[in-house]
Amino acid sequence: MRIVALAGGIGGARFLRGLKAAVAPGDEITVIGNTGDDIHLYGLKVCPDLDTVMYTLGGGIHEEQGWGRTDETWSIKAEMKEYGVGPEWFGLGDRDFATHLVRSQMLTAGYTLSQVTEALCVRWQPGVRLLPMSDDRVETHVKITDEAGTRAVHFQEYWVRLHAAVDAEAIVPVGADTAKPAPGVLDAIAAADVILFPPSNPVVSIGTILAVPGIREAVAAAAAPVVGLSPIIGGAPVRGMADKVLAAVGVETTAEAVARHYGPRGAVGSASDPDGGRPAGLLDGWLVDTADEAAVPAVEAAGITCRAVPLLMTDVEATAAMARAALELAEQVRR
Amino acid sequence: MRIVALAGGIGGARFLRGLKAAVAPGDEITVIGNTGDDIHLYGLKVCPDLDTVMYTLGGGIHEEQGWGRTDETWSIKAEMKEYGVGPEWFGLGDRDFATHLVRSQMLTAGYTLSQVTEALCVRWQPGVRLLPMSDDRVETHVKITDEAGTRAVHFQEYWVRLHAAVDAEAIVPVGADTAKPAPGVLDAIAAADVILFPPSNPVVSIGTILAVPGIREAVAAAAAPVVGLSPIIGGAPVRGMADKVLAAVGVETTAEAVARHYGPRGAVGSASDPDGGRPAGLLDGWLVDTADEAAVPAVEAAGITCRAVPLLMTDVEATAAMARAALELAEQVRR
Repeated sequence: MRIVALAGGIGGARFLRGLKAAVAPGDEITVIGNTGDDIHLYGLKVCPDLDTVMYTLGGGIHEEQGWGRTDETWSIKAEMKEYGVGPEWFGLGDRDFATHLVRSQMLTAGYTLSQVTEALCVRWQPGVRLLPMSDDRVETHVKITDEAGTRAVHFQEYWVRLHAAVDAEAIVPVGADTAKPAPGVLDAIAAADVILFPPSNPVVSIGTILAVPGIREAVAAAAAPVVGLSPIIGGAPVRGMADKVLAAVGVETTAEAVARHYGPRGAVGSASDPDGGRPAGLLDGWLVDTADEAAVPAVEAAGITCRAVPLLMTDVEATAAMARAALELAEQVRR
Repeated sequence: MRIVALAGGIGGARFLRGLKAAVAPGDEITVIGNTGDDIHLYGLKVCPDLDTVMYTLGGGIHEEQGWGRTDETWSIKAEMKEYGVGPEWFGLGDRDFATHLVRSQMLTAGYTLSQVTEALCVRWQPGVRLLPMSDDRVETHVKITDEAGTRAVHFQEYWVRLHAAVDAEAIVPVGADTAKPAPGVLDAIAAADVILFPPSNPVVSIGTILAVPGIREAVAAAAAPVVGLSPIIGGAPVRGMADKVLAAVGVETTAEAVARHYGPRGAVGSASDPDGGRPAGLLDGWLVDTADEAAVPAVEAAGITCRAVPLLMTDVEATAAMARAALELAEQVRR
């Protein structure tokens, strides 16, 4: 079975670890990773979401933190402080720096991000095929208003430095409109037997991937069933600050509203994609947490088959059970 | 008093620390640093000699090793090995990497190496004005013949990877012929009250600096006395493998031969600079170790005032005594 998953960072990576534990031998998992939160720091190209997936599946992640490397050292960060070179708010450990050095050197030598990611995965052996959503530069910016006035900041600055404490007025994936899907992305979606939306951020992770022209259309047109898992439980994000960016796109922080935001397969246009020009409906199935069981009828009324199962990724076994539930739902909605 | 010193790496840096201890308050030291052993690694510009001077005088050097940083960590090196990215033979610690990251980022932004060096020294406060010999790229290559045939290797590969175990057939400072002295270099030499050649490598350190068109001529024409300290004691280099590169330029590994190689001030041409077209004679005074006292008459016969004093840089005080001896000799030969 060929499974395609769209993935952001920590939540997506943890779900994928459960998915790997859930699938049968011989099943192939292709991960389309968000690159909208990529950032250039110290002259290096940093790809936080791709790296989180790679480290998590390859056994190098800092478990408690969810991002960055295990057994990390922080000498460079200390030195940068002595040199007065920032940003201080972004944590790059020494081991992590090595990844960015190798990546940047290969990019400068002319390799694409896809090729670099494949090369890095030769070491990490994540057990999935990891594709960046695009080889073109896409950078998610967030419009905010604070004492410095109204301005757009890089997503990482909004998320890591400002802790999303300011309201997000708009989310702009700069460059997405002219980006092309990376080689293999559209083929993988077209050839998939199942397409999954892990409980990643619907706006700045999955939403950014879908913003690359061709990807949303390919998912909407795919023969495979599309099943998503709600990142919202009991009206709040399980982790992260998804409520802030959901508000920016006019979506309530509820499992039901996120399902409606993705929209039922076949629907054209939606409340959150009012121009209606692009195929907006993507979901055949949607998993909500048992805490949100009351939302099931409303999601189904919207044309999306819905089940309530435990959605807390407390450990790999609990996460594998979530993945199994998603794959089972995919079979139920297969046309 | 304005003192100008030409300097390579470890030997030069240690001498400069002694010089700083020897001079009077208000004396100004300008160091013209060798950049011929600079190398690009992992996409970063590494300046080993400039950094060794900066770290040694700024209190950040690894004392026993003589190069690199104290309290160093080696996470990146371990990661590079896992990624299979070399060269494994060159040791860059994590703290050291931070320097190369800051430097490379500034160079990419358009600053010159002089400007970058000045910026890095804002942190290190080396107590001297540190100038690269040139802002232009100069890279010392060494011609060797081994089982892989006759070829040119980067000086660092010859020195660090091959440990100078193969004979050097030629030393070629690639790019030196078209390089320009960095801003301030010629002015500092012209305005100097004393010019010193520390016991650095006469070929690949001081020789490379002198190979930048204009610098050798400026030293030869300077009003200030020029005094050197022999890096050769008892027929062998005190540290390093200077004998190998001296042989490549046809100079014996003796304190006397190195003095003759620099040549007496005013002489045109010399045995080791047979074309005679450039002013070859540079030295007014030369210090040899007490072990080489027998060489004094021959050096003086060559037209260079010579004294024998202890030249082992065993600690800062012993090194300061060497610097005082050099400054005293400068006064004796001042015209």
